[in-house]
Amino acid sequence: MNNYFCERNHEIEVFERCYYNQLPLMLKGPTGCGKSQLVQVMAERLKLHLIKVACNEDTSSADLLGRFLIKGAETIWQDGPVTRAVRSGALLYLDEVAEAREDVVVALHPLTDHRRELYLDRLNETIQAPASFMCVASFNPGYQQGFKELKPSTRQRFVSLVMDYLNDEDESNLILRLTEVSSNEARMLAKLAQKIRLLAEYNLKETVSTRLLVNTAKLIHDGMEPRRAGYVGIAEVLSDDPEIIRALKDLIDLSF
Amino acid sequence: MNNYFCERNHEIEVFERCYYNQLPLMLKGPTGCGKSQLVQVMAERLKLHLIKVACNEDTSSADLLGRFLIKGAETIWQDGPVTRAVRSGALLYLDEVAEAREDVVVALHPLTDHRRELYLDRLNETIQAPASFMCVASFNPGYQQGFKELKPSTRQRFVSLVMDYLNDEDESNLILRLTEVSSNEARMLAKLAQKIRLLAEYNLKETVSTRLLVNTAKLIHDGMEPRRAGYVGIAEVLSDDPEIIRALKDLIDLSF
Amino acid sequence: MNNYFCERNHEIEVFERCYYNQLPLMLKGPTGCGKSQLVQVMAERLKLHLIKVACNEDTSSADLLGRFLIKGAETIWQDGPVTRAVRSGALLYLDEVAEAREDVVVALHPLTDHRRELYLDRLNETIQAPASFMCVASFNPGYQQGFKELKPSTRQRFVSLVMDYLNDEDESNLILRLTEVSSNEARMLAKLAQKIRLLAEYNLKETVSTRLLVNTAKLIHDGMEPRRAGYVGIAEVLSDDPEIIRALKDLIDLSF
Amino acid sequence: MNNYFCERNHEIEVFERCYYNQLPLMLKGPTGCGKSQLVQVMAERLKLHLIKVACNEDTSSADLLGRFLIKGAETIWQDGPVTRAVRSGALLYLDEVAEAREDVVVALHPLTDHRRELYLDRLNETIQAPASFMCVASFNPGYQQGFKELKPSTRQRFVSLVMDYLNDEDESNLILRLTEVSSNEARMLAKLAQKIRLLAEYNLKETVSTRLLVNTAKLIHDGMEPRRAGYVGIAEVLSDDPEIIRALKDLIDLSF
Amino acid sequence: MNNYFCERNHEIEVFERCYYNQLPLMLKGPTGCGKSQLVQVMAERLKLHLIKVACNEDTSSADLLGRFLIKGAETIWQDGPVTRAVRSGALLYLDEVAEAREDVVVALHPLTDHRRELYLDRLNETIQAPASFMCVASFNPGYQQGFKELKPSTRQRFVSLVMDYLNDEDESNLILRLTEVSSNEARMLAKLAQKIRLLAEYNLKETVSTRLLVNTAKLIHDGMEPRRAGYVGIAEVLSDDPEIIRALKDLIDLSF
Amino acid sequence: MNNYFCERNHEIEVFERCYYNQLPLMLKGPTGCGKSQLVQVMAERLKLHLIKVACNEDTSSADLLGRFLIKGAETIWQDGPVTRAVRSGALLYLDEVAEAREDVVVALHPLTDHRRELYLDRLNETIQAPASFMCVASFNPGYQQGFKELKPSTRQRFVSLVMDYLNDEDESNLILRLTEVSSNEARMLAKLAQKIRLLAEYNLKETVSTRLLVNTAKLIHDGMEPRRAGYVGIAEVLSDDPEIIRALKDLIDLSF
Repeated sequence: MNNYFCERNHEIEVFERCYYNQLPLMLKGPTGCGKSQLVQVMAERLKLHLIKVACNEDTSSADLLGRFLIKGAETIWQDGPVTRAVRSGALLYLDEVAEAREDVVVALHPLTDHRRELYLDRLNETIQAPASFMCVASFNPGYQQGFKELKPSTRQRFVSLVMDYLNDEDESNLILRLTEVSSNEARMLAKLAQKIRLLAEYNLKETVSTRLLVNTAKLIHDGMEPRRAGYVGIAEVLSDDPEIIRALKDLIDLSF
Repeated sequence: MNNYFCERNHEIEVFERCYYNQLPLMLKGPTGCGKSQLVQVMAERLKLHLIKVACNEDTSSADLLGRFLIKGAETIWQDGPVTRAVRSGALLYLDEVAEAREDVVVALHPLTDHRRELYLDRLNETIQAPASFMCVASFNPGYQQGFKELKPSTRQRFVSLVMDYLNDEDESNLILRLTEVSSNEARMLAKLAQKIRLLAEYNLKETVSTRLLVNTAKLIHDGMEPRRAGYVGIAEVLSDDPEIIRALKDLIDLSF
Repeated sequence: MNNYFCERNHEIEVFERCYYNQLPLMLKGPTGCGKSQLVQVMAERLKLHLIKVACNEDTSSADLLGRFLIKGAETIWQDGPVTRAVRSGALLYLDEVAEAREDVVVALHPLTDHRRELYLDRLNETIQAPASFMCVASFNPGYQQGFKELKPSTRQRFVSLVMDYLNDEDESNLILRLTEVSSNEARMLAKLAQKIRLLAEYNLKETVSTRLLVNTAKLIHDGMEPRRAGYVGIAEVLSDDPEIIRALKDLIDLSF
Repeated sequence: MNNYFCERNHEIEVFERCYYNQLPLMLKGPTGCGKSQLVQVMAERLKLHLIKVACNEDTSSADLLGRFLIKGAETIWQDGPVTRAVRSGALLYLDEVAEAREDVVVALHPLTDHRRELYLDRLNETIQAPASFMCVASFNPGYQQGFKELKPSTRQRFVSLVMDYLNDEDESNLILRLTEVSSNEARMLAKLAQKIRLLAEYNLKETVSTRLLVNTAKLIHDGMEPRRAGYVGIAEVLSDDPEIIRALKDLIDLSF
Repeated sequence: MNNYFCERNHEIEVFERCYYNQLPLMLKGPTGCGKSQLVQVMAERLKLHLIKVACNEDTSSADLLGRFLIKGAETIWQDGPVTRAVRSGALLYLDEVAEAREDVVVALHPLTDHRRELYLDRLNETIQAPASFMCVASFNPGYQQGFKELKPSTRQRFVSLVMDYLNDEDESNLILRLTEVSSNEARMLAKLAQKIRLLAEYNLKETVSTRLLVNTAKLIHDGMEPRRAGYVGIAEVLSDDPEIIRALKDLIDLSF
Repeated sequence: MNNYFCERNHEIEVFERCYYNQLPLMLKGPTGCGKSQLVQVMAERLKLHLIKVACNEDTSSADLLGRFLIKGAETIWQDGPVTRAVRSGALLYLDEVAEAREDVVVALHPLTDHRRELYLDRLNETIQAPASFMCVASFNPGYQQGFKELKPSTRQRFVSLVMDYLNDEDESNLILRLTEVSSNEARMLAKLAQKIRLLAEYNLKETVSTRLLVNTAKLIHDGMEPRRAGYVGIAEVLSDDPEIIRALKDLIDLSF
C-alpha cells in the first residue's frame, strides 16, 4: 500500500505548487482517505526524506525539538524529529496536528511563515530551513464530538487541501494493486464500501476506509469465507453497536 | 486454566489468517470470556513467545518502549516490553488497549500498518518487526458508562474478532478440565451461569465469567458447603447491592 | 485489640479454603467491622508474615513494587512492600484497594490469577509467588457518594467475603477482653452500639465501630464521667451536625 | 497570647486522659477559638516537645516523613517533622488535618491505632512511637462550602473534643492578660464579640475570634481612635461585603 | 510615580501603628488605587528594605522560601525572597496574596501570629523574625467572578485597611507631580476619571486607575492629540467591547 | 512580507511616543491584521534588536527567564529570551500574551511599570532595563469562546492600540509589493477579501487575513487556475463547514 497514489482532484499539483512556493500545506480529510499515502508518494516524487510525527496531547515540545541526554559524565544534545527535518531539509509530516499541545504548535509558527526558521530554546539557536524543507500537516474535520480545534493563527499559515475517498472504480483498481484477489472480488468490495459510505444514518463515527477493504481482501484471498472476512474485516471493526453491526452484516451478505 | 481454548466461532482460523497475513487483531468481548486464554493458546500453537501488556492510563510510553537507567556512572538503555516484543518477533498482547494513554496508542500506529516498525525517539532508532511478530489487542465494548473509546484511526488498523461466553455444555466441560468437581456439579455450575447471564434485569455491570465458576468449583471440591461457595465465589463477587445479591443467592439456592 | 477475632459467619473457614486453594480474597464491609483484625489473626494462625499496604490515590506503583535509589555513587534497587511480600511468600493485605491508582491495580492482575507472578518492569524480572503467598484485599461498599469502584476485571479475580459488626453479646465480650471496664459497663456500651446502628435515619456516613466502644471504655475506666466519655468517644466522633450529635447524646444519656 | 488557656468544658481533663490512655485526639472548632492555644499549654503541662504541622493539599508525604537530600557526593536522609515527632516522643499537632493529601492521612493510620508505629517506605524502616508520643489533630467543621471531609476510617481513630469561643467574662479577662487596655475597654470588646457572634444573619464565613479582639485592643492602647481600631481590626477583617461591613461598623459605633 | 503617597483616610497612621505593634497588615482595594505606592512610601519612612513578592498560582513554596541549587559538585542553599525578608528584618509585601497556593499561605501562618517565625522544612531551621520585620499583603475584593478567596484562618491574622481611589483634587495634584502636563490638563484628566468611575453601568471589570491618567498625560505632553491619547491610554485599555469603548470615547471627546 | 507596514490610524506615531515615554504597548486585533508586521517594521525604524516570544499555556517562566543547565560537571546559567531582551535593551514582543501562564505574566509586572526591572529568582539578581528596552504585547479580543482574559492589573500597565485589516486599496498595493501577480489580480483579491470580511453571517471564527491573499496570489502567479487557488488558499482554510465553504467558493467564482 506504500508507493501509489490515485489522484482525485489535482492533489499532486496543489502539493507541488506549495512545495515550489515554500508554502506549508494542510491535508484535511477522514481517516484512511489517503493523506499519509499522498505524503509518502510526494516525498518520493520530490526526492525528499520523509519524517513523520504523530501528534498527540502527551507529546512535549522537547520530544519534537530535542533534549539534553546524560550519558555517563557527559551531556549530549539530541535533535528531535522536527529539528532533524529542518536541519536536513526533509519533508516534515505532522499527522493529526490538531491533537498536539499548544507549545508544540506555537514552536512551529516561525517555521510556517515567511521566516521558515526554528528556534531551539535550550540551545539558544535559530535554524534556518533550507529551500528543500516543506511542512505538511493533516487534520480530520470529521470528528463530531468537539475535539480540539486549531486556532485561526495556526490554520491561516497553511494552504488547505480537502481529500475524500476514491470513487469505486479507482478504489477497485487500488485493491487489485495491493492484493491478489480477483478483479470481481475487488469490484464487489469497492461497491460495498460505496454503499456503506452513503448510509449516513448508520451513525458511524467514521466510515469504511480503503485499508479495511485491503485487509478484507487479503483474508478472502487467503481462503477465508468472504462473508466472515467482511464481518471481521469491516463490520465488527466499524462499530460496537449490535444493531449497526447487524445492518452492516446484512449489507455484506447481500454483496457476497 | 492455562492451555486450553474451546473454540466457539472460528476464533482460531481468524487468528491464524491474521498472523499469516501480518494483520493486527483486536479481540472484543466481556471480562472473562476467554480473550487472554485464546492469546495464550495461540502463542503456543504458533510457537511464539508471548509478551502481555496491561494497558492503563498511568502507563507512559517510556514504560512500554524503554528508558535510560542510571547505574553508577553509566547510563544504560533498557528496552520496555513492546520493544522487546518487536525485536524478538514475539506475540505482543495489549490488554484493554482503550485504556492506554494517547502517546502510547500513537507510538503503536506504525507497528500496526504496512510499515510494521517501531520508532524509538530516545535512541532515534527504527526497529523493523520480523515476520513472526504479531500485535493483538483486547477491548471490552460492554462497559456502558462512557469509558474511553478508541479513535477510528486506531480501530481501523485491526481486524476485529468478537468473542462471547461458552455455551453451557462447553463451559461444563471446561470446569471439569480445570477442577476436580464431579460432572454433576460442573453441569450445575454451568447451568447456573447461563441463568445469571440471561437475567439482564439484574443490572450487573458485568455478568459471571468462567473464572468465577472455576473458583467456586474449587471451594466446593475442597469441602465447602456448595451454597456458601456460590455465595462467596459468585453472588458477593458480582454485586454490592443487597437486593441483587439476595436475588443471586436465591438462584444459587435453587441450583444446589 | 490485636490477636483475637470473633467469628460471625464462617470467616475463618472461607479464609483458610482460599489460602489452601491459592485463591485471592476480598473482604467487604464497613469501617471498623474487623477486617484488619481477621487478617492479623489469620496471619498468626497460618504462620505467615503479614505485610499491609494502605491503598490511596497518591501511591504510585513504584511505591509498592520498588525503585532505584541513588546512594552516593551507586544505584541500589529497593523492593517495595508488594515485592517483598511476593518474594518472601507473605500474606499481602491491600487495605481499601478501590482507592489505588489504575497502574497499581493492573500490576496486581497477574498476581491474582492462575499465573501468581509479579512483573518488575524496571528490573525486567518476573517473580513467581511461592505457595505460601496469599493476597487479601479490602473494600468498603458502604460509601454512598460515588467513590471509586473496582473494575469487573479486577473484582472477578477475588473470592468475596462480606463482613458486618458483631452482635451485642460478642461485642460486649470483646470489650471485656480489650479493656478493664466492668462487664456491666461493657454490656451497656455494646447495647448502645446496637441502638445507634439500628437508627438508619441518623444519616451517618458510617456508624459506630467497635474501636469507638473500646476507646470510650478506656476513658470510663480511667475515671471519666461515663456520659462525657460517650460524648467525646462516640457522639462527637460520628458527626459534625449539631442535631445528630444532640440525638446521639440523648441516647448516651439514656444508657448511663 | 502563648501560655494561658482558659478552660470551658473539661478540655484539659479530656486531653490528659487521652494522653495517658494513648488515644489520639481531634480538636473540632472554629478559627481562633483556642485550639492551638490548648495544644501549646498542654505541651508545657505534660512537658512534651511540641511539633506543629500545618496540613494543606500541597504537602506531600515526603515533606512530612522525610526525604533523601543530595549533599555533594553523599545522599543523606533527613527526617520530616512527623518522623522527628515519633522518634523523639513529642506532641505532634496536625493543624487542619482535613486539608491534607490522602497519602499523608493514610501514612498516619498505623500511628493512630493500637500499633502506634510509623512506616518509612524509603528506608523500609518501622519506628515504634515511645510512650510519651501523642498525636493531636484539628479540624474546622464550620466551613460550609463543601470543603474536604475526613474519611470515617480516619475520623474514628480519634477521640473528639468540640471547642467553642469563651464567654464574655472569660474573654474579657483573656484580653486583659494579653494586652494593656483598661478593664473597661476589655469588657466592651468582649461584649462586642458576643453581639457579633449572635448575629448569625450577617452571613459571615467565620465570626470574630479572640485574636481580632486582642489586635484591636493593642491598636486602641497604642492611641488609635477606638472606632477606627474596631473598623480595621474587626469589621474590615471579617467581610468584603459593603453592607455587612456597614452593619459591623454600626455595632462598633454603638460600643464605643 | 515612586515616592509620594497622598493620604485619604489615615492610611499612614494605621500602617505605623501596625508596624510598632508587630501586627501584619492587609491592604484591600482595586487595581491601581495606590496599594503598592503606600507600601513603598512606608518602607522609606520606616527605613526598611522592601521585598515585594507577586503571588500567583504557579509559585511554589520553594520559590519563596528557598531551595538547594546544584553548582558543580556542591549543593548550595539559596534563600528565597520571603526568607531573605525575615532574616534581614525587611518589609515583606505579598501582592495579591489570595492568588498564592495553599502551601505558600500556610507557610506564612507562623510568621503572621505571635510566633513571628518562619520554618524552613528543607533545612529544619526556624528563623525568628527581628523586631523590624513587617508583613504586608494586598488583596483585591473587587474581582466579581468568584476568584479565589482567603481562608478565615488566614484573613484573621491581619489588620485590614480598605483603600480607594483619590478624590479629583488630590488626583489632579498627583498627576502634576508625576508628569509635566499643565494644571488645566491634569484637572481635566482627574475629572474624566471621576466620571468614568461613577458610571457603574459601563460594566467594566475594573475602572480607570491613576496609572492610566499618568500614562495618558505623558502622551499628551509629548505632543499627541489629547483625544487620541485618551483613546489609547484609557478607552481601549479598559475594555474590548465596541459599545463600551464607544461610550468611553464619547466621554473623552466631551472632556477635551 | 517582512519590511513594510502600511499605516492605517497613526500606529507608528503611537508606537514611537510609547517608546520615547518608556510606556509598554498592547496591540489588539484579529489574526493576520499586521500586528507582527508593525513590530518588525518599528524594530528596524528604531534600530532595535527584536526578540519575539510566542506565549502559550505550556511555557513556564523558566523557559522565558532562564535556567541552569548541567553541562558535564558544571552548572551553567542560560538566559531565556525575556532576560536577553532586557539585558541587551531590545524590543521584546510577547505575542498572544493572554495565553501565557500566570507566573509568566506576573514576572513581567515590574518590567512594565515605572520600575522597568526584571527579577531573576534563581540568581537573586535584579536587572534594570536600559533606556532602549521596550515591551510590546499582542492580544486578540476577537476569540468569542471565553478564552483566557488578561487581569486588570496586567492590562492597565499597557497603552492600548487597536488594529484592523487594511482597506482594499492599501491591501491591493501590499499584495503587489509581496508577490508578482498583476495589479488586476491583486485588486480582485483585495476586493474578495473585503466582501468576505463584511459577511458576518458566515459565522467564521476569524475572517480572511492578508496572509491568505498573499499565499493565493503566489499560487496564481505560479500558474494555478485562480479559482482553485482561491479554494485551497482561502475557502478551505477558513472553514471546515461544507455550507460555509460552498458559500465562500461561490464568492470566489464570482471574483475570477
